[in-house]
Amino acid sequence: MSAAPSRPVCILGLGLIGGSLLRRLSDSGIRAFGYNRSTPTVDAAVTDGYRASSVLPEVLAQAAADDAIVVLATPFTALDTIITAVRDTAPDCLLTDVVSVKEQVAELVGRLHPGARYVGGHPMAGTSQSGWAATDPALFDGAMWMVTTHDDTDADDWLAVAGLARAAGSYVVPAANDAHDRAAAAISHNPHLTAAVTATVGAGESDLALRLAAGSFRDGTRVAGTAPDLQRAMLEANSIALLNTLSETIDRLTAARDALRDNGDVAAIVDDGHRARRKYEEIAGAAPTPITDVRIGDTGWQQELRRQAHLARVWIG
Amino acid sequence: MSAAPSRPVCILGLGLIGGSLLRRLSDSGIRAFGYNRSTPTVDAAVTDGYRASSVLPEVLAQAAADDAIVVLATPFTALDTIITAVRDTAPDCLLTDVVSVKEQVAELVGRLHPGARYVGGHPMAGTSQSGWAATDPALFDGAMWMVTTHDDTDADDWLAVAGLARAAGSYVVPAANDAHDRAAAAISHNPHLTAAVTATVGAGESDLALRLAAGSFRDGTRVAGTAPDLQRAMLEANSIALLNTLSETIDRLTAARDALRDNGDVAAIVDDGHRARRKYEEIAGAAPTPITDVRIGDTGWQQELRRQAHLARVWIG
Repeated sequence: MSAAPSRPVCILGLGLIGGSLLRRLSDSGIRAFGYNRSTPTVDAAVTDGYRASSVLPEVLAQAAADDAIVVLATPFTALDTIITAVRDTAPDCLLTDVVSVKEQVAELVGRLHPGARYVGGHPMAGTSQSGWAATDPALFDGAMWMVTTHDDTDADDWLAVAGLARAAGSYVVPAANDAHDRAAAAISHNPHLTAAVTATVGAGESDLALRLAAGSFRDGTRVAGTAPDLQRAMLEANSIALLNTLSETIDRLTAARDALRDNGDVAAIVDDGHRARRKYEEIAGAAPTPITDVRIGDTGWQQELRRQAHLARVWIG
Repeated sequence: MSAAPSRPVCILGLGLIGGSLLRRLSDSGIRAFGYNRSTPTVDAAVTDGYRASSVLPEVLAQAAADDAIVVLATPFTALDTIITAVRDTAPDCLLTDVVSVKEQVAELVGRLHPGARYVGGHPMAGTSQSGWAATDPALFDGAMWMVTTHDDTDADDWLAVAGLARAAGSYVVPAANDAHDRAAAAISHNPHLTAAVTATVGAGESDLALRLAAGSFRDGTRVAGTAPDLQRAMLEANSIALLNTLSETIDRLTAARDALRDNGDVAAIVDDGHRARRKYEEIAGAAPTPITDVRIGDTGWQQELRRQAHLARVWIG
């Protein structure tokens, strides 16, 4: 696999994720250009030496002329306007996205732009900062980048999107949209809610408590500092999966509360959490195991990629 | 205030906290020596150039001969044996501790060693590692060290314990035991439970989910990796305060679940969490404001210290 996509990349939305992607691809010598509705953001990007514009039709006309890969990189709540514009001006471009849910984005693309060549994506990278000033071309280095892999996914389009993720420095995790959304609820969206409630309970106690707060509070509440509108857009777009993980969280905390009240012990919740954290450290701490023996395009390649992804393996080309 | 305690320091228990304290004080030229029941720990400490022994009566006899400050640094569950030994062999020594709850320790000291000169303490520092190998003489640098400050606290004894905290590199937070325990439940013990349940829900979803896990999961579950027996000893000793914060956590998550289910929105929990995190960052991010205009020993000094501590100020001497 070549590390560089064979065509230009057009990025719609230049916040933390889209902006970092524009920088990374451009810095690597790939022809990349971006759109943002905010003029200050565009000015900042241009000042930093990148190609950006706040005129969406012009950016999309350029994408169509270049046969660019178009990347949706706005918050979920802004997608409908953007997808409609893509349909009107760059309908034949290969379309992907970097939004944190996949089923709802696929549904939106299917409804607003039914003829789209679309392969979804989601880089598992971010900080609690947002906006162009927070962008970092190294943001995706070694990150996991989910790429939608269904039984009807086109091999060439999949390879183009997976190649984009690789060019950004990431490993490719091939998964179905619903499996991704359940996973994202469990390891990203639910942690945002537990961080938020942990912060609220701590701050509600007293300023003395916040003065005494150390590592467990600092790390455990970090993502509660993310801009609230971005958190809402992300969490509310994945509400069904999130309801399930949130209900399980409440059930487990209630069982812990009952055990603490009735027996004075927290053994079960502490032991379960310790075992889970150790398993995470095993998977995240080791170099990723590559997916092997799959040729993209061979019969059943999509199923086989997904099967190996469930073994925590990654595609590296 | 002199940065160096005027007398030797005897540390009972050489795990992460006690061991780091032995190293810090010894490295600063303060006469310090320690006890641990485990011979391999003592051997490691001695090999690293520190004074340590696994023979408790000998260590305590030395403490009595030196009029040392005795620091209880074992897990809560081992305290009764240790306090009894202190009473039998070094009854006149000034006693303090570094245990993560204060009311239960004070109750234990009062019951087992009623004549003790005791001023409690708790350095808000730690990692998810434990044991001598994890010790770090810089662990307490810039940390908050709670020192028990009640209306009957003796000025000289308080100054000796506060001076010990300062010598270790920490700021002193003067508080009553019950206020400390409520604060510790809110900003340390409750975060251990939310980290544990967040880890469990994530790992329970799939290995694919753990493969996709990024910063929010990594940071939000870190303390779930702490040794389970240490977590249990810490949390169960503060069960009453922890029951309150845990119940509030459950109530807030349940309200969030209902809002998400009925209205599809997570505005309240996200906004509350963001505001709380910002307040924490304001307090933790700035240089600590010193307590002013209090002379230790003047009438009402204990009340005035506590009052200013509730304004998030610290005592620096």
